[in-house]
Amino acid sequence: YFRNPVHMGFGLGSVNPDLASERQTASFSVERLTTVLDGGAEHTRVRRAVVEAIERDPVFSRENQYFQTQNERYEAAVRKAVHLQKKMHEMGWREDGPEFIYIYRALAGDVAFLLHRVFMRSISVLGSDEQVAKWIPLATKHQLIGSYAQTELGHGTYLQGLETTAVFDTTTQEFILNTPKISAMKWWPGDMGRSATHTVVFAQLYVHGKCYGVHPFIVQIRSLRDHSLCPGITAGDIGPKMNFEHIDNGYLMLQNVRIPRENMLNKFCEVQPDGTYVRRGSQKINYFTMTTLRVSLLSDEVILPLMKACTIAIRYSAVRRQSKLNPGEEEAKILDYQTQQEKLLPQLAAAYAFHFINNYLHKLFDRGYKEIQERNFSSLPELHASSSGFKAMLSQYCTAGVEICLRACGGHGYSLLSGLPSLYTKILASCIYEGENTILLLQTARFLIKCFAAASAGQPVPQSVTYLAAVKPGKCPAKNKLDFLNPDIYVEAYQHTAIRLLSSTAAKLQDLIQSGVKKHEAWNQCTVQLVQAAKAHCHYITVKNFVETVEKLENKAGIQKIMKHLCDLYALHGIFSNAGLFLHDGYISGAQMDMITASYLDLLGVIRKDAVPLVDAFDFTDKSLNSALGSYDGNVYQRLYEWAQKSPTNQQVHPAYEKYLRPLLHNKLSKL
Amino acid sequence: YFRNPVHMGFGLGSVNPDLASERQTASFSVERLTTVLDGGAEHTRVRRAVVEAIERDPVFSRENQYFQTQNERYEAAVRKAVHLQKKMHEMGWREDGPEFIYIYRALAGDVAFLLHRVFMRSISVLGSDEQVAKWIPLATKHQLIGSYAQTELGHGTYLQGLETTAVFDTTTQEFILNTPKISAMKWWPGDMGRSATHTVVFAQLYVHGKCYGVHPFIVQIRSLRDHSLCPGITAGDIGPKMNFEHIDNGYLMLQNVRIPRENMLNKFCEVQPDGTYVRRGSQKINYFTMTTLRVSLLSDEVILPLMKACTIAIRYSAVRRQSKLNPGEEEAKILDYQTQQEKLLPQLAAAYAFHFINNYLHKLFDRGYKEIQERNFSSLPELHASSSGFKAMLSQYCTAGVEICLRACGGHGYSLLSGLPSLYTKILASCIYEGENTILLLQTARFLIKCFAAASAGQPVPQSVTYLAAVKPGKCPAKNKLDFLNPDIYVEAYQHTAIRLLSSTAAKLQDLIQSGVKKHEAWNQCTVQLVQAAKAHCHYITVKNFVETVEKLENKAGIQKIMKHLCDLYALHGIFSNAGLFLHDGYISGAQMDMITASYLDLLGVIRKDAVPLVDAFDFTDKSLNSALGSYDGNVYQRLYEWAQKSPTNQQVHPAYEKYLRPLLHNKLSKL
Repeated sequence: YFRNPVHMGFGLGSVNPDLASERQTASFSVERLTTVLDGGAEHTRVRRAVVEAIERDPVFSRENQYFQTQNERYEAAVRKAVHLQKKMHEMGWREDGPEFIYIYRALAGDVAFLLHRVFMRSISVLGSDEQVAKWIPLATKHQLIGSYAQTELGHGTYLQGLETTAVFDTTTQEFILNTPKISAMKWWPGDMGRSATHTVVFAQLYVHGKCYGVHPFIVQIRSLRDHSLCPGITAGDIGPKMNFEHIDNGYLMLQNVRIPRENMLNKFCEVQPDGTYVRRGSQKINYFTMTTLRVSLLSDEVILPLMKACTIAIRYSAVRRQSKLNPGEEEAKILDYQTQQEKLLPQLAAAYAFHFINNYLHKLFDRGYKEIQERNFSSLPELHASSSGFKAMLSQYCTAGVEICLRACGGHGYSLLSGLPSLYTKILASCIYEGENTILLLQTARFLIKCFAAASAGQPVPQSVTYLAAVKPGKCPAKNKLDFLNPDIYVEAYQHTAIRLLSSTAAKLQDLIQSGVKKHEAWNQCTVQLVQAAKAHCHYITVKNFVETVEKLENKAGIQKIMKHLCDLYALHGIFSNAGLFLHDGYISGAQMDMITASYLDLLGVIRKDAVPLVDAFDFTDKSLNSALGSYDGNVYQRLYEWAQKSPTNQQVHPAYEKYLRPLLHNKLSKL
Repeated sequence: YFRNPVHMGFGLGSVNPDLASERQTASFSVERLTTVLDGGAEHTRVRRAVVEAIERDPVFSRENQYFQTQNERYEAAVRKAVHLQKKMHEMGWREDGPEFIYIYRALAGDVAFLLHRVFMRSISVLGSDEQVAKWIPLATKHQLIGSYAQTELGHGTYLQGLETTAVFDTTTQEFILNTPKISAMKWWPGDMGRSATHTVVFAQLYVHGKCYGVHPFIVQIRSLRDHSLCPGITAGDIGPKMNFEHIDNGYLMLQNVRIPRENMLNKFCEVQPDGTYVRRGSQKINYFTMTTLRVSLLSDEVILPLMKACTIAIRYSAVRRQSKLNPGEEEAKILDYQTQQEKLLPQLAAAYAFHFINNYLHKLFDRGYKEIQERNFSSLPELHASSSGFKAMLSQYCTAGVEICLRACGGHGYSLLSGLPSLYTKILASCIYEGENTILLLQTARFLIKCFAAASAGQPVPQSVTYLAAVKPGKCPAKNKLDFLNPDIYVEAYQHTAIRLLSSTAAKLQDLIQSGVKKHEAWNQCTVQLVQAAKAHCHYITVKNFVETVEKLENKAGIQKIMKHLCDLYALHGIFSNAGLFLHDGYISGAQMDMITASYLDLLGVIRKDAVPLVDAFDFTDKSLNSALGSYDGNVYQRLYEWAQKSPTNQQVHPAYEKYLRPLLHNKLSKL
């Protein structure tokens, strides 16, 4: 019926005119902005080639993803992982090639064996040359599948508390591994519930009754012949989660599992045949691996989901019409309502801000990595603090942002077919994994407190925190709302607030200690405020970096101008939403806050005009969005209807009719 | 292995000692507080009897809910709905009896045919005596299953824009119904995708080419003989959603569907045989039905989920130990960390605050209902504004609160087995259904703006907004942190802020209009601030009501004292989290904000001591929580392990092994 184009409104394939009109008035070149975001035209070309090759291959299709059970999604993820090896070979893509970073993005995460890569990395970093020579070739050829068994039922963040044990038996030259209590059971490791044949187990090492702390051991858990569990091993899947249905997060119990002495990863420490424990070199580099992981996940797992959610919600808001702005006119696009702009456009500005801070972090880490290769470990504390703080801030903000986008699409956003629920349930996990956010922010705070003390004492501090030495009271000099579009004005406000929060908390901490409260207890009593201070620091750096990025942009094709607007919006939205922090000591007055509010609301109207081109520039394909609301052509209602019909709930008469409804309803009359 | 109690830590059935110790030190009687919450011992008795009867009946079991597909959950919901009729008859429970309000709570929502009740209610309210006499007995006996088809693909909030048409044909005395465009298709109605035989369709009425606006029509959509779709009907399920998998939310297309003239619900208006349109009496009462619905859902759909989430997260936080507060001691309960307290305890205080404001709203509505029965409609605007504002504020806060609880449980909170993801994905919908929250807050704001103008002009206003007349500048008189435990001090601060936000936005609106901006455009430019003002009003009323409730509590068994602490915490947390609103005009100074922060953080420590008894008082059974983390006995790790083993992902060797892994891994050696 509705396949008749007259009834459809527009034929599928042609762009909804409400969306088309948004693109005609763009103040800048979308293609050029895409290139800026990619870091150059060559990157754009490579990215598009990878995405096209992946999306054209039916094995990688995500078409029915929203209808699949956990079992079905696991199977699809394994199929894709196995096929990916073949595909890479066919296409000539190499792990160290330019295409590699785009592959997982194009697959949109629904692929197995990611932990296999962590398994390999941990052997490469922590294993001796012999261990690397033995295991890496096997793993590279997928003759085994590895996992990484660190987290236990009872321990996540506090690694020192792990309860799994590895006792060295000098008579047999073996380690005997056990999970002696239920809370010691390994729980959560990916690829372990059903797939992995091997894993790296983190366990407390005991030799001659003495505990040497947590060490990594390679343990085989399943037979290579028939995949059955090895003796002493109990393993399985931990069951349904809020998302990640495609991953077989697993549990693992060990009962007197014996492994040879050579299976302890021993680049940095070793148990010799007689039980002598030898430690070699620095273990600091281990932290660097974890630190790097936190930064490397930001782009694909945290920032891209927010960009996708913005794309979906903003395109939909330019198509959806509801109610009237002015009586007598046609119904208005919901994107023309101030409240809708206030929901979505700050998320858009944040997505850009985070893209740029991610670039900043990568540069920071590249520089740090070079220094470390030259045996200079001095930047490690700063790198650790940055990766912790920004991972926490970005994952928290982006999770909230995706949720705002979901809600802003009303009922249709709540349908899985919008793509928004699965973005949300997946990004939410990023607030917890690779370090729970509160714990991470407290790590950052600890670093800042140290730097603040050093800076106050006139000692040198890392470059990113030199501003802490510049404590100066005073007031914001802005006189009218336009002054708040001056980056110097708002960067200064962020800096002032970050310093104030840190210095006042440092003072409270010192007061408590001087009044006799024990150091650890005093720290605990300051943690709510320490978290605030750490966030304010990261917020300040993000705003400053956005400003600096905009300054460096070539002023072509309107790019710099629109980026300046987004930067202003990001900065003023942050002040508007955290007004108390800026008003607290009078640095910003109430009257100035009114100016900020006015400028902020004005900017919404300015950016609204370019909102659709600004999400188009993210350059997501329809397949990668996998959203009935967010497609490029804006034919949302047709897609919702067509996709709904594919649902298994529409595939047959449901047995519930025969079982329950027929006995109730059956009537000689078919009609009342 | 772990079934051996030594390995389990504690035998299942006995209470985890960490949780037991929390209960030994309660400062009040839990049973007495439960009675207070229920509104008397008799209510507690009835509630427990209903819960017990439902939970003992295996048909109502939710045991495998987290493992079920959408199809399976639908079938279970239909089975429960059909069985419920039998159960009610057996137990002698009547729709107007005291047990009725507890039945759906005990079923925890997983039951079908809720829209059948809305179908019946709309006929009772909008139908003539003849229509009621014809349809209600059939519906009561479930000889038909009804639905309620209002929302369309293209229209949710703006009912005037509905596109379905009903054209009166005088020659046949029938209405001809059509959904003439894809966006006119009915979309979302519950029970309609697969179950309903009838529905109330809202359509634009046309007679002799003239449109009379939206009216309700009874339409049969499926045969009573074999459940096949009636001629001209296309209907199905809209597919997977973020939750509500048990409900067959459906779509419906109508193509020249003819229904007799008598099927238009005609208590208030009628089309006579010759096509004359007659309107009778007031339609205002219709709004009252919608208004009442918003208030009636608060308890079960909004406040209870937050109470459940608090129960799960707080019990878990008293069992989970992680890291050390003081070196040399054993690992600390995570509830002893200030940051964990700051996440959970304000949610707990809010759950109590909302329970009491819900009581307030019910009283307000009972009084209003009595007046309306006496044909006095004067309280309708206040009731409408209250139901809109509080529905929006509570659903938004409780949704955020459930998410905080989920995240506060770390990785285990992310497992469906914790019960938290499904609480979250379900409560999220309450921000959208029965009125999208932003739209609702703007309704409240419109009422407040009118009342403010009236109050400023010295005219009488409804009782809940008389405070608007009391604009007085000035400063908060508090001198130290203890002053902020004086309810007069903080209630005054909330009142002052609510008035300030409203009056400044009213002034901006007037300025814009006087400067020549059109009225509707001016309104749009103020909506972000109008939403703020509406929230501040509801927040103020909630704090004030909590204070008044505490004052009225009998001072027995420590109840009043602990409720006073919670009230203080709720109020101070609100100021701490919205500091900018209070600091803006200097009513609260920066130094006073520091006092508030100090008092607020002190209160966390006070309430932490009673946190577990305070959630115990909500009196949820383990079955109703359905959470591996939240059970009364606190044996969280055992339950996670036992429940995970029941997952379908652990039921068999997955076919992915044979298909994909075996070809990759198979090796003559089983072991490396």
